[in-house]
Amino acid sequence: MIRDRVLALLRQVAEGHVDADAALDQLARDPIESLSFATIDHHRALRQGYPEVILGQGKTTGQIVAIAERIAAHGDGFLVTRAAPDALTALEGGFPALEVNLVGRCAYLPPNEPTPRGRGTILIVTAGTSDLPVAEEASVTAGALGNTVERLTDVGVAGIHRVLSGAEALTRAAVVIVIAGMDGALPSVVGGLVSRPVIAVPTSVGYGASFGGIAALLAALNSCAAGVTVVNIDNGFGAAVAASRITHASVP
Amino acid sequence: MIRDRVLALLRQVAEGHVDADAALDQLARDPIESLSFATIDHHRALRQGYPEVILGQGKTTGQIVAIAERIAAHGDGFLVTRAAPDALTALEGGFPALEVNLVGRCAYLPPNEPTPRGRGTILIVTAGTSDLPVAEEASVTAGALGNTVERLTDVGVAGIHRVLSGAEALTRAAVVIVIAGMDGALPSVVGGLVSRPVIAVPTSVGYGASFGGIAALLAALNSCAAGVTVVNIDNGFGAAVAASRITHASVP
Amino acid sequence: MIRDRVLALLRQVAEGHVDADAALDQLARDPIESLSFATIDHHRALRQGYPEVILGQGKTTGQIVAIAERIAAHGDGFLVTRAAPDALTALEGGFPALEVNLVGRCAYLPPNEPTPRGRGTILIVTAGTSDLPVAEEASVTAGALGNTVERLTDVGVAGIHRVLSGAEALTRAAVVIVIAGMDGALPSVVGGLVSRPVIAVPTSVGYGASFGGIAALLAALNSCAAGVTVVNIDNGFGAAVAASRITHASVP
Amino acid sequence: MIRDRVLALLRQVAEGHVDADAALDQLARDPIESLSFATIDHHRALRQGYPEVILGQGKTTGQIVAIAERIAAHGDGFLVTRAAPDALTALEGGFPALEVNLVGRCAYLPPNEPTPRGRGTILIVTAGTSDLPVAEEASVTAGALGNTVERLTDVGVAGIHRVLSGAEALTRAAVVIVIAGMDGALPSVVGGLVSRPVIAVPTSVGYGASFGGIAALLAALNSCAAGVTVVNIDNGFGAAVAASRITHASVP
Amino acid sequence: MIRDRVLALLRQVAEGHVDADAALDQLARDPIESLSFATIDHHRALRQGYPEVILGQGKTTGQIVAIAERIAAHGDGFLVTRAAPDALTALEGGFPALEVNLVGRCAYLPPNEPTPRGRGTILIVTAGTSDLPVAEEASVTAGALGNTVERLTDVGVAGIHRVLSGAEALTRAAVVIVIAGMDGALPSVVGGLVSRPVIAVPTSVGYGASFGGIAALLAALNSCAAGVTVVNIDNGFGAAVAASRITHASVP
Amino acid sequence: MIRDRVLALLRQVAEGHVDADAALDQLARDPIESLSFATIDHHRALRQGYPEVILGQGKTTGQIVAIAERIAAHGDGFLVTRAAPDALTALEGGFPALEVNLVGRCAYLPPNEPTPRGRGTILIVTAGTSDLPVAEEASVTAGALGNTVERLTDVGVAGIHRVLSGAEALTRAAVVIVIAGMDGALPSVVGGLVSRPVIAVPTSVGYGASFGGIAALLAALNSCAAGVTVVNIDNGFGAAVAASRITHASVP
Amino acid sequence: MIRDRVLALLRQVAEGHVDADAALDQLARDPIESLSFATIDHHRALRQGYPEVILGQGKTTGQIVAIAERIAAHGDGFLVTRAAPDALTALEGGFPALEVNLVGRCAYLPPNEPTPRGRGTILIVTAGTSDLPVAEEASVTAGALGNTVERLTDVGVAGIHRVLSGAEALTRAAVVIVIAGMDGALPSVVGGLVSRPVIAVPTSVGYGASFGGIAALLAALNSCAAGVTVVNIDNGFGAAVAASRITHASVP
Amino acid sequence: MIRDRVLALLRQVAEGHVDADAALDQLARDPIESLSFATIDHHRALRQGYPEVILGQGKTTGQIVAIAERIAAHGDGFLVTRAAPDALTALEGGFPALEVNLVGRCAYLPPNEPTPRGRGTILIVTAGTSDLPVAEEASVTAGALGNTVERLTDVGVAGIHRVLSGAEALTRAAVVIVIAGMDGALPSVVGGLVSRPVIAVPTSVGYGASFGGIAALLAALNSCAAGVTVVNIDNGFGAAVAASRITHASVP
Repeated sequence: MIRDRVLALLRQVAEGHVDADAALDQLARDPIESLSFATIDHHRALRQGYPEVILGQGKTTGQIVAIAERIAAHGDGFLVTRAAPDALTALEGGFPALEVNLVGRCAYLPPNEPTPRGRGTILIVTAGTSDLPVAEEASVTAGALGNTVERLTDVGVAGIHRVLSGAEALTRAAVVIVIAGMDGALPSVVGGLVSRPVIAVPTSVGYGASFGGIAALLAALNSCAAGVTVVNIDNGFGAAVAASRITHASVP
Repeated sequence: MIRDRVLALLRQVAEGHVDADAALDQLARDPIESLSFATIDHHRALRQGYPEVILGQGKTTGQIVAIAERIAAHGDGFLVTRAAPDALTALEGGFPALEVNLVGRCAYLPPNEPTPRGRGTILIVTAGTSDLPVAEEASVTAGALGNTVERLTDVGVAGIHRVLSGAEALTRAAVVIVIAGMDGALPSVVGGLVSRPVIAVPTSVGYGASFGGIAALLAALNSCAAGVTVVNIDNGFGAAVAASRITHASVP
Repeated sequence: MIRDRVLALLRQVAEGHVDADAALDQLARDPIESLSFATIDHHRALRQGYPEVILGQGKTTGQIVAIAERIAAHGDGFLVTRAAPDALTALEGGFPALEVNLVGRCAYLPPNEPTPRGRGTILIVTAGTSDLPVAEEASVTAGALGNTVERLTDVGVAGIHRVLSGAEALTRAAVVIVIAGMDGALPSVVGGLVSRPVIAVPTSVGYGASFGGIAALLAALNSCAAGVTVVNIDNGFGAAVAASRITHASVP
Repeated sequence: MIRDRVLALLRQVAEGHVDADAALDQLARDPIESLSFATIDHHRALRQGYPEVILGQGKTTGQIVAIAERIAAHGDGFLVTRAAPDALTALEGGFPALEVNLVGRCAYLPPNEPTPRGRGTILIVTAGTSDLPVAEEASVTAGALGNTVERLTDVGVAGIHRVLSGAEALTRAAVVIVIAGMDGALPSVVGGLVSRPVIAVPTSVGYGASFGGIAALLAALNSCAAGVTVVNIDNGFGAAVAASRITHASVP
Repeated sequence: MIRDRVLALLRQVAEGHVDADAALDQLARDPIESLSFATIDHHRALRQGYPEVILGQGKTTGQIVAIAERIAAHGDGFLVTRAAPDALTALEGGFPALEVNLVGRCAYLPPNEPTPRGRGTILIVTAGTSDLPVAEEASVTAGALGNTVERLTDVGVAGIHRVLSGAEALTRAAVVIVIAGMDGALPSVVGGLVSRPVIAVPTSVGYGASFGGIAALLAALNSCAAGVTVVNIDNGFGAAVAASRITHASVP
Repeated sequence: MIRDRVLALLRQVAEGHVDADAALDQLARDPIESLSFATIDHHRALRQGYPEVILGQGKTTGQIVAIAERIAAHGDGFLVTRAAPDALTALEGGFPALEVNLVGRCAYLPPNEPTPRGRGTILIVTAGTSDLPVAEEASVTAGALGNTVERLTDVGVAGIHRVLSGAEALTRAAVVIVIAGMDGALPSVVGGLVSRPVIAVPTSVGYGASFGGIAALLAALNSCAAGVTVVNIDNGFGAAVAASRITHASVP
Repeated sequence: MIRDRVLALLRQVAEGHVDADAALDQLARDPIESLSFATIDHHRALRQGYPEVILGQGKTTGQIVAIAERIAAHGDGFLVTRAAPDALTALEGGFPALEVNLVGRCAYLPPNEPTPRGRGTILIVTAGTSDLPVAEEASVTAGALGNTVERLTDVGVAGIHRVLSGAEALTRAAVVIVIAGMDGALPSVVGGLVSRPVIAVPTSVGYGASFGGIAALLAALNSCAAGVTVVNIDNGFGAAVAASRITHASVP
Repeated sequence: MIRDRVLALLRQVAEGHVDADAALDQLARDPIESLSFATIDHHRALRQGYPEVILGQGKTTGQIVAIAERIAAHGDGFLVTRAAPDALTALEGGFPALEVNLVGRCAYLPPNEPTPRGRGTILIVTAGTSDLPVAEEASVTAGALGNTVERLTDVGVAGIHRVLSGAEALTRAAVVIVIAGMDGALPSVVGGLVSRPVIAVPTSVGYGASFGGIAALLAALNSCAAGVTVVNIDNGFGAAVAASRITHASVP
C-alpha cells in the first residue's frame, strides 16, 4: 500500500501534474493533522484496518476530547482506552452515539462507514473474576474492529474440569485470547487443547510475588504449549487488535 | 476434537462394545507411551497439527536419540531444537533422511504422511546478522510445519530505509515474524507498516544493559504499534509455531 | 475421587440409565454454576476438603455478596479473604452468622455440616507485631478448616531467647507456620529447632531494601534449615490451607 | 526435646552431680565436633530425624571426604548432595556401601541403625524429561529418610490428559512433590486435583525469560490452587525433607 | 577555571595580601552560603554556565521559597523543577517576574545579567502526547540556559512517516532531544537519521511491563544507532542541560 | 553477659536456692512481657546498651501507645521511629517529657537512669536537602543513645569543594554517617578522605532509575573507598545505632 | 541530507531522466548491498559521518571477514569492535593496513579518503586500571572518527586529589568521556568540575552487588551533576561516537 | 590531615620558599606516580592507615606485578586481593617475603615499617564451610592492617546452639564480622547477642533463588537486629578494612 501511494505520486510528478517540491511535502505531511499536543494520523484507519485509538492514560480530559473531536469531524470513529471516569463522562456528553464501558474503562464511537467483519469468532477466556476489566477492554476492542466475540469466564486451572467443560467453545473459535493473572497457568493448558492461534494476556491480578503481573507474564512467555504468543500485562486492547489482525487477514 | 473422541468412546460404552473400566483406562492412557524418562504423546500431531518436538536442551544425547527412535517407529516425523552438535551428529547417523541445520541448532525428519500446507507466506525479518541463529530455527520450524518462508535480513531501524525498502515483501506476507535484539525497535516499525499479524522474537543479541534480551523483550511487549504479539527471548521455534497456527486456521 | 465419579457415570451409561450426550454434558458442567462474572464450583468443598473461598481483592462488593449468596443458598459455608472494610460490612448485614476479623481482613460463615477436624495443633509463630494481620488471616483460615490453633507472637531472632522460650509450644505442634518480614530469619531458626513440618510466610513488613517482602521471601527460600517450605508474601491464607492439608491427611 | 535435655542437665546440677561451670560448657559444646573448616553436629540426626547432610557445592573434595569420615566414624550415615563427579568418585573409593546417583549428583551411606519409616508414599511428579536430575535428588533423599517413593514422569500441562491419566497415583499418595520448570503450571493443576499436601519444586529448565527458574518459582508462589507450598529452585533435596517431615509426623 | 581561581589566590598569598589561614578558609568556604537545611553555591552559575537549580521534589514549600529568596537576593536567577502546584503558587506570589509552567511542573526567574546564548537550535522530539510534561521541562530548561528551542510532537515510530516528515527540522537542529516512553524505539530511528548529537529521554509513559520507564530506558541504552546518549527516566531537565553544554561549548 | 546471667542462675540451682523447673522457666521467660500483640523485652536495654525501640511503621496508634506505656511503667525510656503524625500526637499527650521530631518522624522519652555517653563525635553528612528526614532520624537516635552529634549539610559531590570545605569536621569525628540518595557518590568521596569508620545510608531521594534508593544503595555497596559499610535505604536509625556501637565499645 | 537526495531524485523524475518505477527502486535499494547474512549500507558513512562499523560479537569470523571485504572493495574503511582474538588475527592477514588493538578488542582500517577532523580534544578519563579495555575501545573509535584524544587514567574518587590534579586537562577538553565501574561516582565529580559535555560509560568492573555494571549504570543515570549523559555498560564505542557527533557538529 | 598538608604548603608560599605555580603543581601531583595504566597513590597509606591495595580482578598479571614493584620500591608493603593463581605464582617469584593465601586468593607483603596495632580482637564468624574463602580474605586483610584475629566457623542458625556455644568469643571481641550466604540469617542472631559493632558479609554461597548472594545481602540489609552494617557480597576485604577502621580509631 505504501509502495502504491508513493508510486502514484511519482507518476504524477513524471507527468508534470505535481512538481518535485510539492510532491515531497505531500509525501511527508499529507495524512497528518497537528494539534499543539498531538499529531493525528487520519490515514491510519486505511492502512491498519482499525479506527484511530486514543490511549487515555497520561492525557488530560481536555486533550482526549480535543483529539476525539478532530477525528469525529472527519467522520471517523474512535476507541478511547484506559480512560478515567471523568474523561468518559466528558466524552459521553459530547458524543451521544458513544458506547461507554465503565468496567473496561473504555468508550467506542462507531464510524460512519461500517467496519469490515473479521472471519470467525474471537473467544475470550478468563481465569478469574478479577480479570474482568481486562476482558471487557478486549471485548469492546474486538467488537469495534468488526469481530464476533464469545466468552468463557472464571475457568482457572485450580479446577481443571472448568476449562475442560469449555472444550466446545474452545474448538469452535478462530482465535482464543486467554486472560490470566496470579500463576498464569491457563494459557499453557488452553494452548495444549486447541490448534488455533492463542494469545495470552497476563494480568496484574495477584499480590506479593506476583509483582504486578510479572509472574503471569513470565509464565506465558515460557508456556510449555508451543506457539502461544503474549502481549503486555493487562493489555486487553492489544490482544484484541492482534486477534483482529488474524481474523481480517485474507490471503489471495 | 477432544469432545468427539470422548463422545465416540461413550457411545461404545452405551452400546456395550466397551465396558466402563476399560473405557476409563483408554480415556486416560491410550495416546501415551512411557519411557523411564519421558512420556511420548503420539496423538499430539493429530491434535495440534504439528509433529512431536524434542527440546534438546537439558536432555542427554542418549535420551534424545531414544525418544526420536520411538517416534520414527510410528512413522511420525520429528523436529529436534536447541540440540548440541554432538546430539545432531548422533541423530544424523541414525536417520539418513534427517535435515540438519547447524546454525539453527535443529534437525527435522519429515513424516511419512505429507504435512498439510499453510496458506500464504511467513516472512522472517531480522534486525542484524547476529540474529541469524534464531531466524534459522524459525525458518526450519515453519518449513517443517508445512509453510512457505521468505526472508528479509539485517534491516535494523538505525538505517530506516533498509526496512522501508522491503515494503513489498512486508505487504505480501500472511504473517510477519520480526527478530531483533539490542533495542528491539524493529517490531514496532514493522507493526506500524503492515496490517497482518506480526510476531516479535526478542533475541539475546547485545551486551551490558541488554541483559540477555530483556531490553528487546520489554520493547516488544510495550510496542507502540498495536497488536504486535511476543514470544520468549530467542524463541524462533515458538514464533514459527504461532505463525503456523495462523496459516493453518480455516474458518468454515 | 475424580476417577470414582467418572467411573460411576460411565457405569450409568453402560446400564442405559444415562445416554452418552447427557453423560458428557454432566461430566463437563455439573458441579459448576455460572454467574456472568464467576463460575462457582459447588463440589470443590467435597474434592478439596475446604469451603469455597472468595478472594476479595479485585472484586467489587457487589460481586462478593452475589457469590456469597449463591454459596450460602446451597447450605455451604464460605471464607472471604483480603476484603475491603466496605465489603466486610456489606456481608455482615446479609449473613448474621458471619464471623468477621477486621485485622485479618477476612470473614467466615460456618457451613451447615460440621467441618472434619484436623489432627493436632497448628502453631502460628510471628516475628513482630506488624506481622499480625497475616497471622490473623492464617488463624481464621485454619479455624475455618477445622483446626486447633496456637500462637507465639513477636519472637524475632534479634532476641533469640524469645523464640527459645517458646520451645515447648514448638515441639507440641503438629505443623508450625512461621510469619516473618524484614530479614526473614525466623523460619530458619524454627526449622532447625523442630522436626515437624514448617511453613514460612514471608511478609511485606519492612522498608527500603525489603522490597515489599522480597528479602524475607528469598531468605525463606534459601533457608539453611532443610525442609522448610514457603508460600507467597503475606499469604497467611495459603499457609493455613497447606497446614490443614497436612493435619487432614490420613494414610490407611 | 531441647527442654528435656536442658532440664535433665539442670537436675544434675541441682543434685550436685555436675557443677555449674561444667554444665554450662556441656550445654554449649557437647553435640558438636569442630574441624578447622566445619562444625559437625552429631546430635542433629536425633533432633531432626534425618542423617547429617553434606552440601557438596562450595566444598573441596578433600573437605567433603573429611567430614564424611568423621560422621561415618560415629556409625552415622550421611547424604552428600550437589557433589561434583570427582567428589562422588573419591567417596565411592572410601565407602564401599555408598549408593551413588550420578544424574542426581548425590550419594547416600546408610547408617548402622535403620531409619524410621515414614507413613504412606511420596509421589514425585515431573513436567518434563529435563527435570529428571532434580527428581533424582528428591528421590534419593526421600529414600534415605525412610520413605517409599513413586514417580510420575513427563506429564506437563501442555498435554493435560497426561497428568489426568495419573489421577490414581495422585490420589494414592500421602504427599505429592511436583517438579516443573518453564511456565511452572503443573503445581497449580496438581494442587487442584488432590487434597493432600503438595510441594512445588521450580526448576531452572528453560531459557530466555525463564531466568534460571524465576518464572517457574513465581508461578508456584502464585499458584491459584490454595495450599501449595514451594521450595528453592532445583531444590529436590529440600522438597524431600519437607515431605518426610510430613510422613514422619506422628500426633498422639 | 578552578585552577585559575586557586592560582590567583596563591599569588595573593605569595604577595602577602592574604595570609595562609585566611586563604585556606576562603578556598574552602567562599562561594557557599549555608542555611540550616541547604548549602547554596552562588558560584555554580559561573562555573557551570547555568543558574542555580532547585529540585523541588523532596523539599517543603518553605524550603524552596527560602532557597529561592537567597539566590534572588544575589541578583541571580533560578530554575525550580519537579515542584508541586502549591510550591509554584507560593513562588509566584513572591517573585512577580517568575515564569511558571504548570504542565512541566517548573518555574524560571531570569537573572539580572543576560544568559549567554547557545549556538544553534535544540530540537525536542516527542513520541506521544503523554510525553508532553517531560518535553515542557526540557523546553523551559533549555530556554533558561539561553537556547532556541524547536518542537516535533507525537511522531512515534508506529507511524514511521510522521518522523520522516520531520526530516527538515531534524537536519536543521544543532542537538536533538528525543523523548519517548513505552517501547522507546524513537531514539534509534532518529539517531539513524541525523549525524548531530542525539540525547534520549526515556519516559515513564506506559503500563505493565514498561515498569515505570525501564523498558524505554533499556531500549535507549541499547540503541542500534551508534552514539545516542541517555539521561534518567523523565529527566527532561538533564537532557536540556546536556544539550546546552553542547551548544555553549566553544573551542578555540 | 548472657553467659554471666546463665552462670549465676546455674549457681543458684547448684546451691539449692532455685529448683530446676523454676530455673528453666526463669531462663526462658523472665525478661519478657507479653501483650496480646507484642513481646516486650525489658532486658534488651541492658544487653544491647540502648532503650527499647518501637518501630512505628505497621503498628496502629493504639499498639504503639500500649507498648510505650508498658516500657515507661518500668522507668525505661523509649524511642519511637517511623511514626505517623497521629501516633506522635497521641504519644505527646501521654508522655509530657517526650521529645518529638516531626521531620524525622520519631519521638524520644529519656529513661530515668542517664544513658552512658559515647566517646567522640558522630558526624552526620548529607548530600542534599531532601535527605534531611533521614538525617533527623539518625540525629535523634544517636542523641538518645548518649552521643554528641555534629552535622554537615547539602555537600553533594556535584560541587566537590563543598565537601572538601568540611575537611575539618570530617577529620575531627569519631564516626562519620554519610546520607545520600540519587547517585550515592558521597560515601566514596568521604570514605577516601577520612580514616575513621564511615557508615553509608542510601536514601530514596531521586526518581526514575533511582528505583527508590537502589541506585544509591548499590553505589554504597560498591564504594571504591575500602571499608565503607552500609545500612538499609533511609535507615537513619540503624546507622546511628551502628555508630553508637562503635562509640560505646570499650576494649580493656 | 535525506531530503536533498530525495529531492534530487524527484527532480530527475520530473525532468524525465528517470522513470517512476526506477526511481522508486533506487529510492529503496540503492545504497544497500545484500549478502545472505547481512545488509551493508554503503551510504551510511556519508549520512552519519563515520565508516561502516562491524560489531564482531555474535558474528562468526567468516561473516566478519566477508563483510569487511565488501566494504574495503568500495574503498571505504571500517572499524571492527568486540572481536574475538581469532577474528582479529584473520582480519590482520587480509588487510595489511589494519590497525589492531588487542586490549580494546577492535581493529581499524583507514578509508581511502581522509576522515574530516573533529574540533577540539576528546578527553578519556578512567576510574581504575580495570577500565582500560573500554577506554581503548573508545580511544580507537574516536581516532578513527577523526578526533584528537587525550587520557587521564586511574583517577577514581576514593583518592579525590587524583582527579583534581587533572583539572587542567579537564578544562582543556571539548568533550569528556568518563569511564568508571564499581560505584560509578566519577562522572558526578567530573560533571561538577567542567562545563563541557560529559559522557559517562559505566563498566562491568566490580563484583557482587555491582551486578555486571548495573550499579555504575544507575549511578551515572542518577548523577547529581546536571547534564551528564550515559551510554550502555562497557560501550566505549558508543561514547566515542557520541563525542564525535559533538566535535563534528558545525552550526552555520 | 588534608588541611594540615595544604596549610603547610600555603605557609611555604607565604614565606617565599615555594612560588605559586610550583605550589599548585605540588598540591595536585605530588603523592601520585603514573604508569601508563595506573595512578599509584604513595601517600594513601599515610592518609588511610593501610598499605596500597591491588585489586587483582580485571588486571593482567603483568599489570599487577608492575604496580607491586613500584610500591615495593618505595619500601611500602602491599596487599593483592582477588588474584588468579597465575598472578599469585608470578608475585611469589618476585617477592620472597610475600605471604600467599590460596583459599583467600590474596597475598601480602609486609612493609618496612611495622603497621600500627589495632585495639582488641576482630572475630570472624562464618555460617558454613563454603564461606571459607571470604573468611580467609577477611583474615589476611585484618592481619595485614595490624589486627589480632579470632575465628568461629560453621555456626549457621539451623543449629542455633552452635552459635550460642560461641557466646564467650562473641562477647570478647572488639568487632565481629559475620560471613553468611544462603538465607543470611546469622548476622541478625549475632547482632542481637552482642553490643559491639557487627559487620555482615553476605556471600554468594547458595543456588537458585539465592541469586549469587542477593538473598543474603537483602537479609543483612533488613536485619531485625539494629545497628548491623553491611558490605558488598563476598567482600571479606572490605569488612576487614571497616573493622580495622574501628580498632584503629583513637579519640582524644
